[in-house]
Amino acid sequence: MSLEILPVHGIGEITAGDDLALLITAAAPWLADGDVLVVTSKIVSKAEGRLVEVPADGPEREEARQRTLAGETARVVARRGPTTIVQTHHGFVMAAAGIDASNVDKTHLVLLPEDPDASARRLRADLLARGLDVAIIVSDTMGRAWRNGLTDVALGAAGIEALLDHRGQVDPYGNELSLTQMAVADELAAAAELVKGKCDGVPVAVVRGYPYRPADSGAKVLIRDAESDMFSLGTAEARALGLRDAALLADVPVTGATASGHATELVAGVLTPGTGITSYGPGTLRLTPAGPAPADLLRLGADTHRVRVTLAAAGLASTADLDDGGVTLTLGAPA
Amino acid sequence: MSLEILPVHGIGEITAGDDLALLITAAAPWLADGDVLVVTSKIVSKAEGRLVEVPADGPEREEARQRTLAGETARVVARRGPTTIVQTHHGFVMAAAGIDASNVDKTHLVLLPEDPDASARRLRADLLARGLDVAIIVSDTMGRAWRNGLTDVALGAAGIEALLDHRGQVDPYGNELSLTQMAVADELAAAAELVKGKCDGVPVAVVRGYPYRPADSGAKVLIRDAESDMFSLGTAEARALGLRDAALLADVPVTGATASGHATELVAGVLTPGTGITSYGPGTLRLTPAGPAPADLLRLGADTHRVRVTLAAAGLASTADLDDGGVTLTLGAPA
Repeated sequence: MSLEILPVHGIGEITAGDDLALLITAAAPWLADGDVLVVTSKIVSKAEGRLVEVPADGPEREEARQRTLAGETARVVARRGPTTIVQTHHGFVMAAAGIDASNVDKTHLVLLPEDPDASARRLRADLLARGLDVAIIVSDTMGRAWRNGLTDVALGAAGIEALLDHRGQVDPYGNELSLTQMAVADELAAAAELVKGKCDGVPVAVVRGYPYRPADSGAKVLIRDAESDMFSLGTAEARALGLRDAALLADVPVTGATASGHATELVAGVLTPGTGITSYGPGTLRLTPAGPAPADLLRLGADTHRVRVTLAAAGLASTADLDDGGVTLTLGAPA
Repeated sequence: MSLEILPVHGIGEITAGDDLALLITAAAPWLADGDVLVVTSKIVSKAEGRLVEVPADGPEREEARQRTLAGETARVVARRGPTTIVQTHHGFVMAAAGIDASNVDKTHLVLLPEDPDASARRLRADLLARGLDVAIIVSDTMGRAWRNGLTDVALGAAGIEALLDHRGQVDPYGNELSLTQMAVADELAAAAELVKGKCDGVPVAVVRGYPYRPADSGAKVLIRDAESDMFSLGTAEARALGLRDAALLADVPVTGATASGHATELVAGVLTPGTGITSYGPGTLRLTPAGPAPADLLRLGADTHRVRVTLAAAGLASTADLDDGGVTLTLGAPA
């Protein structure tokens, strides 16, 4: 199997209401059944009228941009300096929600298509109506964690399985492949970008010869939901969340009974020297002040919170009962 | 410009000491100047003897795997269940440090090449010695944040600019492109993966027709260093770091003088009802217990630590002076 990647020239400027199927087939009469058509999301957005009017410059422009960004944002993932990375309502994690001011006149911003899978399905249906059976990928440029530089990925797809599952296959040595789901729609988008470039008006490319599996699952299968994502928040944001959680740490009912040896060690590590610590057996620790002065009690109170946060960092819930002689800590899993 | 992506069949099994340039030119006598040769890192590793002998099964196998992983790990980035994502000594952020047990017999693990850029340069030089001027990419399969599925990326490169900088270019509307550095070496690796597959013994592919810029910077320019990475730690790990920081929060000398209105509001938000709070002016707050009982002092002590953590989450350092009547907090930037 070998592939060809072919640019589609001469698509021209797209405005709201344009018929992309008509324009693409006119520009690429050589399109054939089985081709993968990779379409830059920007022309899909323009054809769908996903533009927002903004002032051409001045502080009003920046205000309008911020308002637009807020509208496209489901949640903020990370911020640093002028960069805001958000999760969009579609679920994509992208800088500035994928809102783009390039390749459009200065009085407009281009939003992502409202539903890129639906856009891909519509275009595929329009081409099918013209007798052409091709897979569609709606692509955009995206940043990544850990690596410099951007790559194109698939925001939408139609007629093609976006995620190719090799799990369960056996290699020539008899090892079963695990954890090997390839994001082929993203790889096709990346391959197409190599012939599209940024400024030269080639918003569409064709991958010919790729034996894709037909499917209707779209590109949304490529979106990892925040709950199963180990990187759902920026490092600074997650650390700040830890600090805020520590400040607000509530006394919660606990199940009691936990391995007290390790817990006692953790607790002893943060206590002010002189503070008494007695284990009453699994799940209970008694802390007593270093001396009789009021300042000693204040110090034990502060230590108690340090201790509870330390336990929380180790995944242990705790509750503190304060009395006039000291503190009784009960540890365990949240009840 | 159009591209062809051509698989190289018949490379066969690679063992330590094999001459990849010889094997590749024998398998692909059609290779031509200007081609981009994408070589799966696994065969580079095998040729370089980057294998570790391990027991074929049992707990000893898992122990050996863990020891090997520790050896390849510069730092742990995130852990969840059986998955450990680490930064390798090269700087790559990869699950299990890229150590692979597939496509190798059960008594060996394959490590990444020690220096994939150097491997790429060597292969390029060996091919140049045979009169062939091609760019080399050493590729591997990698996971990403936020998106399901894996894609192939460039671990090493020679003779090609891995990162293509569009910054400063002007689009047809006169907008200057910003933030647009394309990771073309990763896109080439992804394109090549589409013809390589996982189990069918095609570890090399050729991208023909791509007008790459010659360069000697390698693929290491694609590695974002942890300091400039907004996702240098897993969310759970960063939150736990915040909790540990909160537990250990030290009294640090502060510059004093900060906007006390906002700080007073923050502080009031976490105090136990009844606790006294007096502002002595910019940078100083006095906290007094709700009542005279020792338990009230314990509670104020705990509140003091909650308050200091709250201030830390807002980026404010603080120091607490405890006396027999209460607590004096001094806020500000770290001195």
